[in-house]
Amino acid sequence: MADQKKVEAITAIDVDFTQWYTDVVLKAELIDYFSVKGCMILRPYGYAIWENIQKGLDGMFKATGHENVAMPLFIPESLLQKEKDHVAGFAPEVAWVTQGGSETLTERLCVRPTSETLFCDHYSRVIQSWRDLPKLYNQWVSVVRWEKTTRPFLRTTEFYWQEGHTAHATAEEAKLETRRMLDVYADFFRDFLAIPVVKGLKTENEKFAGAVDTYTIEAMMHDGKALQSATSHYFGDGFARAFDIQYSDRNNQQQYVHQTSWGLSTRSIGAIIMVHGDDSGLVLPPRVAPVQVVIIPIAAHKPGVLEKAQQIQSQLGASFRVKLDSSDKMPGWKFSEYEMKGVPLRLELGPRDLQQNQCVAVRRDNGEKIVLSLDNLTADVQSLLDQVHDGLYRKAQNSLDSRIRSAVGMADFADLIQNKPGFVKAMWCGDGACEQKIKDETGATARCIPFEQETIADTCVCCGRPAQKMVIWGKAY
Amino acid sequence: MADQKKVEAITAIDVDFTQWYTDVVLKAELIDYFSVKGCMILRPYGYAIWENIQKGLDGMFKATGHENVAMPLFIPESLLQKEKDHVAGFAPEVAWVTQGGSETLTERLCVRPTSETLFCDHYSRVIQSWRDLPKLYNQWVSVVRWEKTTRPFLRTTEFYWQEGHTAHATAEEAKLETRRMLDVYADFFRDFLAIPVVKGLKTENEKFAGAVDTYTIEAMMHDGKALQSATSHYFGDGFARAFDIQYSDRNNQQQYVHQTSWGLSTRSIGAIIMVHGDDSGLVLPPRVAPVQVVIIPIAAHKPGVLEKAQQIQSQLGASFRVKLDSSDKMPGWKFSEYEMKGVPLRLELGPRDLQQNQCVAVRRDNGEKIVLSLDNLTADVQSLLDQVHDGLYRKAQNSLDSRIRSAVGMADFADLIQNKPGFVKAMWCGDGACEQKIKDETGATARCIPFEQETIADTCVCCGRPAQKMVIWGKAY
Repeated sequence: MADQKKVEAITAIDVDFTQWYTDVVLKAELIDYFSVKGCMILRPYGYAIWENIQKGLDGMFKATGHENVAMPLFIPESLLQKEKDHVAGFAPEVAWVTQGGSETLTERLCVRPTSETLFCDHYSRVIQSWRDLPKLYNQWVSVVRWEKTTRPFLRTTEFYWQEGHTAHATAEEAKLETRRMLDVYADFFRDFLAIPVVKGLKTENEKFAGAVDTYTIEAMMHDGKALQSATSHYFGDGFARAFDIQYSDRNNQQQYVHQTSWGLSTRSIGAIIMVHGDDSGLVLPPRVAPVQVVIIPIAAHKPGVLEKAQQIQSQLGASFRVKLDSSDKMPGWKFSEYEMKGVPLRLELGPRDLQQNQCVAVRRDNGEKIVLSLDNLTADVQSLLDQVHDGLYRKAQNSLDSRIRSAVGMADFADLIQNKPGFVKAMWCGDGACEQKIKDETGATARCIPFEQETIADTCVCCGRPAQKMVIWGKAY
Repeated sequence: MADQKKVEAITAIDVDFTQWYTDVVLKAELIDYFSVKGCMILRPYGYAIWENIQKGLDGMFKATGHENVAMPLFIPESLLQKEKDHVAGFAPEVAWVTQGGSETLTERLCVRPTSETLFCDHYSRVIQSWRDLPKLYNQWVSVVRWEKTTRPFLRTTEFYWQEGHTAHATAEEAKLETRRMLDVYADFFRDFLAIPVVKGLKTENEKFAGAVDTYTIEAMMHDGKALQSATSHYFGDGFARAFDIQYSDRNNQQQYVHQTSWGLSTRSIGAIIMVHGDDSGLVLPPRVAPVQVVIIPIAAHKPGVLEKAQQIQSQLGASFRVKLDSSDKMPGWKFSEYEMKGVPLRLELGPRDLQQNQCVAVRRDNGEKIVLSLDNLTADVQSLLDQVHDGLYRKAQNSLDSRIRSAVGMADFADLIQNKPGFVKAMWCGDGACEQKIKDETGATARCIPFEQETIADTCVCCGRPAQKMVIWGKAY
């Protein structure tokens, strides 16, 4: 029992949510800070979550016919400038390479902030005929955006993501793809991260630079703020015209392709932390947890305990990501450590359990203790992990549902935004000026025009003119 | 049978090996060129090979206790400069970021050419006690080196690799790790890529900037030239002293850690192409081939053919990476296409095969045709894929063995290097001046001091002084 580090207490979640978040990302050993502002080091435990996210999502991409590629890191300035709206959106926040080895470059290269221009440049060379379509490409890379204010996972100068870029023969196909991939993201959030989302369309002010339409999934964090969690963009043929991506159709006519792009990033780890976490630290959804089950031997020096624990580890290891902690730390210390790290299920095994051919399972999400027979352990653990997933999802769904409130006038609206953490549903006339006014007065932005529309009132919450759409508003990360 | 592209013939391998290589990487659709010199686009088929390499090698890393992390893309100039030999080796070939958004940076950032300095910086913060050791970290990323002459996969400005970086309590442990990871690479080349290698130590002139010892695996290409295929470096405590990475040992004394690093890159795809390829194109080793088995229906319009082909695809798909090509192209065209792409096994299925409950398997490596009963197909295909792997390895081993020749004097040496493609074994006095003279006079470099030493002569092939070691020499990529 030598020089053991203690798990120090973290800030309480409802006392200072920002500090709690910082405490968790550091104490759970997800990241380390780095001297370049906004660049983070993903430590093994943090990166393992990302690996599991990649594995799950990549499987869904491949099941829907997508292929992975790798585009270059650098974009020549002239290439970035080809699509005017796009460059206007990104040029102010890119990092520029101006020297290579000992030579000063004749043209600056930006470190990719996103790769539309790279994919378009490639597509202009490899797409010739309708037989070459659709192109359903994706890549897993990091991108760089020179951010002024940064926080681990939520907004970082360099971040990790996947970016899908597709080219289609018709606008209809491209529109279907845009919506299909939004559904993939929403399903992934539900089935892997146990996080419910609101699906909808971004307003003109909030859409992606160069897009015709941007769709989004918005999740609600513990403090009621929104996190834009993934987006899917429909480009029409705007990029195709700028990059001259044409194909000859079945009648030998030249046609422009129609395109989409869609991305999900390490932000999703921020969502996991801020949706499920509690005063004891991280709470990980089982399907992306690096360790799904931790086995803690109690009185491990007693005959048979360690042997049985190893046997259980080996048995469960065939089906789950399992860790046996047989170190000389006190069991209570270990409990705290794996609670901080959000391990979904803890199995305790002591001499008395051995005698009774059982172990004690403890759920991270609600602290419930369940005595399990060792005879049917694999099936019981699978069932408990599924229950943890379902329990996390239900809790998050309740939290979301109970904190979306309606407002019909600006006084109500401002009061809700200021005093009731959560989203506000309110009608909107469609005028960007109202959207801006709401933002200026309340700090809330239009998160999305949700697919599930309701008629709360006939008039815009801001100006009183006839309403066009119901919008979900909220403060956001 | 509309507007089908034809597979155009490629340059013959023994007529112009360089042009053959370029033809193969383009016609097999591995890469597309990009406007930034030396940056390549990995197309789906090329990237899928890299994904399979990653999967296989990452499994070996995890089985040996290594964990993945992600370090930042940028290294501040002051951090790169901390270890003097290292910065001297890399500073001349890095890309520099000097502007972020609209601001000119006060300190230049280099785009990582390799990440020793990043790992050391992190280790200096997270290693405190002997309990924190060893740290066995790896990352899968791209790195950038501003190269003057580039060729796809072999030498590119941006390339993809893994870089392992470990820290140990003692020099002995770090030395064992260095050799262990070299063995992992050699095993991976043998078991996944079907490529035999020569293992050995690099000379002082050829070792990595900042290393005490650099170990290498060297493979022989079709043209007899060497490809340095992976390296493993022992650093002693040089980086630890430069970055102040100390831990308190069991006696509470402060000690410097001892470190290693090791890397394998997309160069390995170049090795696959240049070791196994032939006049018909790529020949892929089955364990990393994106498509292991392609099924080609013959007279697919005849009743039952396509249905049976689909049934076989579905059956084999449970165990292998299988593609069924039911397009309207001619079978002969398809044969050429999948030969160009190096698919290890082709299954042909026509009406007569159906009647006889069989299909015809054709091996890519040697063209052998084997009639297979449909009753035992999964086991037979597995066996054939293993035979292809073993056949490729044996052929490459024979090619390597028969082209390593001995020289005792400079006249012999120069004649062999000039007239006999392959490696030359020759004794060396250990003096870098002789090594340089050999390079100047013959163009051959010391590939390695192989672990398997022989005494070919008592004197240095160059100067006639007493020999210390046998060295493997060769022209190299």
